[in-house]
Amino acid sequence: MSEAPHLTFDLDEPGMTKGYLVVPKGADCEALSLPVFSLNRGEGPRLLITGGCHGNELEGPIVARRLVEWLPEAQTCGRIIIVPVLNPPAVQAWSRNTPVDGLNLNRVFPGRANGSVTERIANAASRLLLPMADTVFDLHSFGPTWDFPPATTTHPIADPALMAKTIKMAEAFKLPMTLVWESVDTAGMFDTLAQNQGKVFVCPEFGGGNVNSEALVIYEAGIRNALIALGLVGGKAEYPTFRQRKSSQTLETRRSSDELKSPAPGIFEPRCSVLDEVKQGDLIGTLYPMDSLTADSIDIRAPGTCIVYAIRSGAHVNIDEGVALVARPLIR
Amino acid sequence: MSEAPHLTFDLDEPGMTKGYLVVPKGADCEALSLPVFSLNRGEGPRLLITGGCHGNELEGPIVARRLVEWLPEAQTCGRIIIVPVLNPPAVQAWSRNTPVDGLNLNRVFPGRANGSVTERIANAASRLLLPMADTVFDLHSFGPTWDFPPATTTHPIADPALMAKTIKMAEAFKLPMTLVWESVDTAGMFDTLAQNQGKVFVCPEFGGGNVNSEALVIYEAGIRNALIALGLVGGKAEYPTFRQRKSSQTLETRRSSDELKSPAPGIFEPRCSVLDEVKQGDLIGTLYPMDSLTADSIDIRAPGTCIVYAIRSGAHVNIDEGVALVARPLIR
Repeated sequence: MSEAPHLTFDLDEPGMTKGYLVVPKGADCEALSLPVFSLNRGEGPRLLITGGCHGNELEGPIVARRLVEWLPEAQTCGRIIIVPVLNPPAVQAWSRNTPVDGLNLNRVFPGRANGSVTERIANAASRLLLPMADTVFDLHSFGPTWDFPPATTTHPIADPALMAKTIKMAEAFKLPMTLVWESVDTAGMFDTLAQNQGKVFVCPEFGGGNVNSEALVIYEAGIRNALIALGLVGGKAEYPTFRQRKSSQTLETRRSSDELKSPAPGIFEPRCSVLDEVKQGDLIGTLYPMDSLTADSIDIRAPGTCIVYAIRSGAHVNIDEGVALVARPLIR
Repeated sequence: MSEAPHLTFDLDEPGMTKGYLVVPKGADCEALSLPVFSLNRGEGPRLLITGGCHGNELEGPIVARRLVEWLPEAQTCGRIIIVPVLNPPAVQAWSRNTPVDGLNLNRVFPGRANGSVTERIANAASRLLLPMADTVFDLHSFGPTWDFPPATTTHPIADPALMAKTIKMAEAFKLPMTLVWESVDTAGMFDTLAQNQGKVFVCPEFGGGNVNSEALVIYEAGIRNALIALGLVGGKAEYPTFRQRKSSQTLETRRSSDELKSPAPGIFEPRCSVLDEVKQGDLIGTLYPMDSLTADSIDIRAPGTCIVYAIRSGAHVNIDEGVALVARPLIR
């Protein structure tokens, strides 16, 4: 190992400063220099904002860059560290996982100093960025071939006080949906590492794969609302308008049983919209098997009363592949 | 070579019949059986409708299947052959090119009987389907990471009579845009082969990468309008509604000079909508370079008066990669 991960500047400087988080080179690639922006207004909440963990989720990096433009004027107290792109090789390749080693950055935390490049990024972020914050916003998107409303997500947390605090923070974004997502696959997540250290960690999930101006306005408004709730900036929080509605709801879902799966291989056409409330038997979508002369299209219907929060659009699916995700109002 | 490409049924049978177009096996994969639907009402126009040439353009296969449901009742004369999926290995992989040999089916026509699988598909279609038709609708989509209005496209054709006939057919879809697209890369296209045989060949280009119900309604309406114009079904053609407008315009574009390119690597955010008319200096989009601390965002502006007909959304672009395509009204 040639060097340790380090920052090229002092995060403790007052005001806005910037520099790089250097991820050391390894056997698989040269050293990476990740742009880091530090906004230090002294005492107050300590917030870390990261984007570009997955390389095909690009709303986060854009919104993070925009924050750098207006936050220095608006911030009244506390400290904010912004890293628009946590995984540059993945963003440049428009690929969820890092192309160099094929790893998912959000499954290798806390990383390894002498591991492959994805593990070295996780190690650098865990050692040098995470200790500076008590709250983390990790900006994700739902990715291509799904429709998904602007939302904040979190996972169930064993500590009830931290769970309540995290849901409250997630709801402060005032995005159309706040989702508590029971996941079986949380090992190595940035979330889990931060929560194990008692930090509040919220993932905004930013729509589908396509960046557009309307969605960016909503997402930026959501983050501004959260910054207001933290007391880092002044102003009044407002619900952004999404598909003619100004509202928000908090839902819970289980990763395994709340996934509607395709009964056959074919092309899936969504027949309802995200955030639609459906009853048992309502039409969710239609599957068109493409390989036979006799198979008619197959209707996929709701298993019970629920809210469709994500729906597949525009991909050939295999048998048992997910086509829709459903949830119910969170019971507290 | 084990066998010749063949149909498992007789296309000359009256009424609706169905069977497979068998593409023989080769060194690279087993034989393929492509579902084919034949609707024979005797004398009249002879139309071939194909979908799924590119595997990540899935509106075409769905609309083609839907036609099979209602056309047998509605058709009044002539012959229609429908092949919802021309390239099953590509559709199953949601991949533009065929994964087996990496080839673009729409660049290998007329194919080769003893070639790789993509060439064998082209050969089978050229020999057994194309001779049955005097008009071809090849159903494409613009693919992921672009926004594109429902449209029909054609390329400049040397024969002025065939060009005029082709534009008239393309306009009969009454979709928001009819585009004459000067392309430098026409060798091996299905279009070129058909046009060299004096046939009318139109490509509907069906929006971006995501299939949704609203877009499918527009596309199906466009094909219905074209079937009415051909006299194959009765009824009255109507402009479908696209983004609150019921209208259509015919444009021309040059593939090389009408492409706006990115001045640097970064994430592109569209700042106008497809079919917007812009003047010199109007904002088209904003590029966010992600690798430096000093580079501000870069505005990309219109080079002159033109209509933006395709715009990039949601991908990291390299320097000199296309971010928008523009056109002007067709001069006849």
